[in-house]
Amino acid sequence: MDAITELTGALREFTAERGWEPYHSPKNLVMALSVEAAELVEIFQWLTPEQAANVMADPETAEHVREEVADVFAYLLNVCDSLGVDLAQALRDKMVKNAVKHPVPEP
Amino acid sequence: MDAITELTGALREFTAERGWEPYHSPKNLVMALSVEAAELVEIFQWLTPEQAANVMADPETAEHVREEVADVFAYLLNVCDSLGVDLAQALRDKMVKNAVKHPVPEP
Amino acid sequence: MDAITELTGALREFTAERGWEPYHSPKNLVMALSVEAAELVEIFQWLTPEQAANVMADPETAEHVREEVADVFAYLLNVCDSLGVDLAQALRDKMVKNAVKHPVPEP
Amino acid sequence: MDAITELTGALREFTAERGWEPYHSPKNLVMALSVEAAELVEIFQWLTPEQAANVMADPETAEHVREEVADVFAYLLNVCDSLGVDLAQALRDKMVKNAVKHPVPEP
Repeated sequence: MDAITELTGALREFTAERGWEPYHSPKNLVMALSVEAAELVEIFQWLTPEQAANVMADPETAEHVREEVADVFAYLLNVCDSLGVDLAQALRDKMVKNAVKHPVPEP
Repeated sequence: MDAITELTGALREFTAERGWEPYHSPKNLVMALSVEAAELVEIFQWLTPEQAANVMADPETAEHVREEVADVFAYLLNVCDSLGVDLAQALRDKMVKNAVKHPVPEP
Repeated sequence: MDAITELTGALREFTAERGWEPYHSPKNLVMALSVEAAELVEIFQWLTPEQAANVMADPETAEHVREEVADVFAYLLNVCDSLGVDLAQALRDKMVKNAVKHPVPEP
Repeated sequence: MDAITELTGALREFTAERGWEPYHSPKNLVMALSVEAAELVEIFQWLTPEQAANVMADPETAEHVREEVADVFAYLLNVCDSLGVDLAQALRDKMVKNAVKHPVPEP
């Protein structure tokens, strides 16, 4: 099974088992998504570009990064599930638009 | 092929063809991720909870939502690719931790 | 008159004249504040630290920065007005806490 | 003295005493500003509009709101100080533009 489908189902079950559906409105979920994105930014905010590029060399920071990236993905999947958006297809469609907007420069 | 693997590769190629790698440092990518999350929030900020829940009923707004969700996903995949994070596995691991932190309430 | 008091009053009048009060709930206003902060981040996201430090040298970008900073301030004042927070006093109090949390290092 | 001038000076001194200037580049400061805005959003994300409107009734939450609002203001003042932006004037100028963009509706 595709990982997006698998994880969307697992998250839906996780939410239902805890009775969290009333909180998981689309408006609340997009807020939570932006908050998790900020928690990822927080790891990087005081780092030089060099330190930022080496952030995974420290095991504790690496684990922190993995957790925040996971939280962003969780809410992104929740948002898509609550709105009926096919996330992978949305990105394929967007990349076609982006390719028109930003054509490959001539050599 | 898994959609995450497919799209990560497509994004990497898209970036390389346009010579954008120098801009795609981890620090810049997490900033861009948070900016795209905010663009998704912007769609919902003045809506009542009821309007927010019906946001996909209007074709134009629905397309806008799909585009912003796609942009968030694109930068999330870029962040993970640049840092060597397995996004699906990171979320599986986080869900195990979350299940310990938030146990299912007794009936 | 203090600028914070002056601008809070001007913003309140601006909102009332346009009948926007129903939209200006605290929840919506904090969302709008975070969206405006992201629009400020967007100006800086692809810049090197050096380019970022010189962002005011270009008149057009300087004006863009001034506008986004103003938008953040406007929503911050709106949030405080809607919640009855004295913004200047809140920061004075926070600085006392921060001074305890981060003591001046011994020479 | 105007509160904005007073607090800008106090923050500059606070930063200097701790030797934090190297971290306080404009790029880092706008990131920190957006992170603090998200911490304010986090307080509101799971609340109903009614709960959000009553957020100051609980003393502990009220104090949390005051702290996050103060943090946003601190970084906004830091951003303006580092870029040479007159925050109050920037908002006055923006309100003139906004009044043109959004004229008062005819009665």
